[in-house]
Amino acid sequence: MNDQRIKIFDTTLRDGEQAPGCSMTLREKLRLSKALSDLRVDIIEAGFPAASPGDFEAVKAIADENRGPTICGLARCNPEDIEKVHAAVKGADNHRIHVFVATSAIHREHKLKMAKEEIIKTAVGAIRHARELCDDVEFSPEDASRTELAYLAEVVSAAIEAGATTVNIPDTVGYTVPAEFDKLFRYLKKHVARIEEITLSVHCHNDLGMAVANSLAAVAAGARQVECTINGIGERAGNCSLEELVMAVRTRGDFFDLETGIDTTRLYPTSRMVANITGMQIPRNKAIVGENAFAHEAGIHQHGMMQHASTYEIMRPEDIGISKSNLVLGKHSGRHAFRERVSNLGFMLDEFEMNRAFQEFKKLADKKKDMYDGDIEAIILNVDSASSGPWTLKSMEVQSGTEQAARASVSLLNEESAECTVAATAEGPMEAAFKALGQATGIALVLRKFELHSATAGDDAQGEVTVMVDYNGKSWRGHGTSVDIVEAGTRACLEVINRILRRRERGLDEEAANSDINRASI
Amino acid sequence: MNDQRIKIFDTTLRDGEQAPGCSMTLREKLRLSKALSDLRVDIIEAGFPAASPGDFEAVKAIADENRGPTICGLARCNPEDIEKVHAAVKGADNHRIHVFVATSAIHREHKLKMAKEEIIKTAVGAIRHARELCDDVEFSPEDASRTELAYLAEVVSAAIEAGATTVNIPDTVGYTVPAEFDKLFRYLKKHVARIEEITLSVHCHNDLGMAVANSLAAVAAGARQVECTINGIGERAGNCSLEELVMAVRTRGDFFDLETGIDTTRLYPTSRMVANITGMQIPRNKAIVGENAFAHEAGIHQHGMMQHASTYEIMRPEDIGISKSNLVLGKHSGRHAFRERVSNLGFMLDEFEMNRAFQEFKKLADKKKDMYDGDIEAIILNVDSASSGPWTLKSMEVQSGTEQAARASVSLLNEESAECTVAATAEGPMEAAFKALGQATGIALVLRKFELHSATAGDDAQGEVTVMVDYNGKSWRGHGTSVDIVEAGTRACLEVINRILRRRERGLDEEAANSDINRASI
Repeated sequence: MNDQRIKIFDTTLRDGEQAPGCSMTLREKLRLSKALSDLRVDIIEAGFPAASPGDFEAVKAIADENRGPTICGLARCNPEDIEKVHAAVKGADNHRIHVFVATSAIHREHKLKMAKEEIIKTAVGAIRHARELCDDVEFSPEDASRTELAYLAEVVSAAIEAGATTVNIPDTVGYTVPAEFDKLFRYLKKHVARIEEITLSVHCHNDLGMAVANSLAAVAAGARQVECTINGIGERAGNCSLEELVMAVRTRGDFFDLETGIDTTRLYPTSRMVANITGMQIPRNKAIVGENAFAHEAGIHQHGMMQHASTYEIMRPEDIGISKSNLVLGKHSGRHAFRERVSNLGFMLDEFEMNRAFQEFKKLADKKKDMYDGDIEAIILNVDSASSGPWTLKSMEVQSGTEQAARASVSLLNEESAECTVAATAEGPMEAAFKALGQATGIALVLRKFELHSATAGDDAQGEVTVMVDYNGKSWRGHGTSVDIVEAGTRACLEVINRILRRRERGLDEEAANSDINRASI
Repeated sequence: MNDQRIKIFDTTLRDGEQAPGCSMTLREKLRLSKALSDLRVDIIEAGFPAASPGDFEAVKAIADENRGPTICGLARCNPEDIEKVHAAVKGADNHRIHVFVATSAIHREHKLKMAKEEIIKTAVGAIRHARELCDDVEFSPEDASRTELAYLAEVVSAAIEAGATTVNIPDTVGYTVPAEFDKLFRYLKKHVARIEEITLSVHCHNDLGMAVANSLAAVAAGARQVECTINGIGERAGNCSLEELVMAVRTRGDFFDLETGIDTTRLYPTSRMVANITGMQIPRNKAIVGENAFAHEAGIHQHGMMQHASTYEIMRPEDIGISKSNLVLGKHSGRHAFRERVSNLGFMLDEFEMNRAFQEFKKLADKKKDMYDGDIEAIILNVDSASSGPWTLKSMEVQSGTEQAARASVSLLNEESAECTVAATAEGPMEAAFKALGQATGIALVLRKFELHSATAGDDAQGEVTVMVDYNGKSWRGHGTSVDIVEAGTRACLEVINRILRRRERGLDEEAANSDINRASI
């Protein structure tokens, strides 16, 4: 690898997934890890195996199924965490153990209650332990950007001495600015012995809106690994956005003279997938992947002032994988074309699910003239949740209006195909349907948020509904789609109910990923 | 004004409003300009008066009604544009004329087809003309960041010589990076005579995700005015976000040693207002004003690791005006409390509208336990559009389900209170209601996008629907709210139909703000 090549370390599955409302199921994590491999990221941080049995299982499955990128897991500086990471990632050809401990005064005093020397000792012990298990070990001094420079240099030196092969500098609270971060990296380059032997990495948060610029400042000062997430998802204001960083390096090649290994034509599909899975919709004015990012292309400047594309366009839509038309299938498309498209979209379905999805596709094609990628995604997301029961929506009926209370009647089938029909009334049709579901299944969810987006274009568009609900003090997120928005909302709610019931069956009462102890903050 | 004070130039009403789907009505512009005055921005760029009669009218109304900030209008370098700005802004105590012309090679060759000297002559002529009318004149060399440095210095020198009191350096296509922009500003400071006599300004776009960092680099190198928009709205990936810039300067006072005149406790309410008016929802992970920005506060880190707020929090929610609870009114709140809250939220209603809004408030209070600011906003947005007819929604009824086509029946009243009831069937209830509306009013809209967000918290939350529709090749945006989402969508659609009919009545067939010729691109 030449000196101008930056490694892209994707932490969508770890730091991104930690964001409120962004937790993913095992299936979703596997789908995304495959997409990240196709995008050609260098390292996938797949999770925090010590957080919960579910996290461990997910990291292990990702390590076992992905070939290509290095698979990494996060660990606190203790033997149990480190061994769990090793057990989870060792199935991957290339794997990495990533250990972290906080180093700033505020964390030393208020969180860790440890002295400077103690922290160094802890870090060194953990790195040595990790190196016994694995040749590829990354170390992160949490809150590095608020750590005294001289002490930070001391910590980094000790980490290199102990065997860390990558040292990552996190701006944990999104506090730094480019000119300041530049100085920090130059200071380390100057004051840390053997720093040229390891990969220097950067990990930025976006609290003041500068994660991308700070990451690039670090790169210009010598960092050769950037930690980032798709769509910039992550705790609080999120992380450095992968697509912005990659396209800045590419678009301003004249300035940076650097390169990444990313297949930029996979940026847009991967971004859509993450929005789909997490329910974190991409704002219209998001750089690179937002709907308006290439608005000039969409006709706005086609007449009048526009004489030459580069007058206002510094990137081309096709560079990031936006096709001129994403119309793919019609009413007469066969099973083969459908199967191929499903696989291109990164879904892995077994024969049973594929058959169900194809049936749904044919049903929808009867109602809807044009079938877009968004429609296919919507069908599969429905099948995905519906096929895993215990409850299936058989039928529903709703009446509402300004002059009467809304009334919903919902018929569900359980795993034995026994039918249960319940009706309820409320102020609005959605509320009435939710009430009926609660009565039928015994799981009464409290609705916190309801968001609807059209999955595709046109007046026969499918509605893609995301609900945020509370149950027993925990937050859950569900998806549903339909040409009927009330039905879409009902499906979203039922998906959550099914997840709760399946977890209960497996003896998992809690949404572990949502609890405090399981979060890492770098 | 001391040397460490940065002027905040807000262009939400000009560059922000130009973004696809962000055009605002006169009423909305006035409401927002009042909020910007309360936020204590230094300059409001109110619009581009030459764009259309409607734009002229809006800039004039804003200039006439706002005291405090300087009111500015944008003009191309021609006498008509400049005179129109002057006529529109002169009612304000402090007013400014802002002229621009492109200077980069790509714009000179492909757009303007003008030589370097010709462009300088054009700029100088325009600035002199503007100075004859007004003491406060700003000049912008469009696409400055892609202009040859020596030529840019020549242009800026000529502009100062001609009488410009502010010279603004736009990164029109969002192409620069902080280290490069720093060099550009230092070059100008060194090579332009008398540059210390004028205010140097910066205007950044976010195409590579670096608008805030680039603006701060310019400020560190000597710029003392920053052009920005609330929530960073604007063409393509938008502009520098006002709230991020202001909070970065404030939070990192130790680094920048600079200040703004902004009342930061108005940031959150103003951000909400812009989201409300434009329908551009704030992403959960948006820095400063996103729902997750202060997630630690919301309980996530309350147990476990969290010992001290500043461990993970670099700003306090109350600094930007997020109150611990925004529960303001209940069922028993009287007219006086309601009126006061409406005015605090920045709405200006006449007696008739206030009465209607209060009636709606009482009606909703019967259905809904807690009344939040979002509820009040929702009521007023409905009254706002409903009160201006010609059509009013009298009642509606909807039936839908998985086993049958959806059916909607809609009863409308026209201005003579004559009733018109139409029923229609379609795949989904929303589509059926839209069809019925089209048949009743004769305006058949094509639905492009349907977005729904809960205006407030809780399971009796009101739905806030934004629709994007096409009619006669033009795009329109409508809002509607209700506890019944189908009703909310119907209201949103009816709002657009009413706007189209009112424009037709006034002989305005086109949504002027959407046409090419009326857009400025700096």
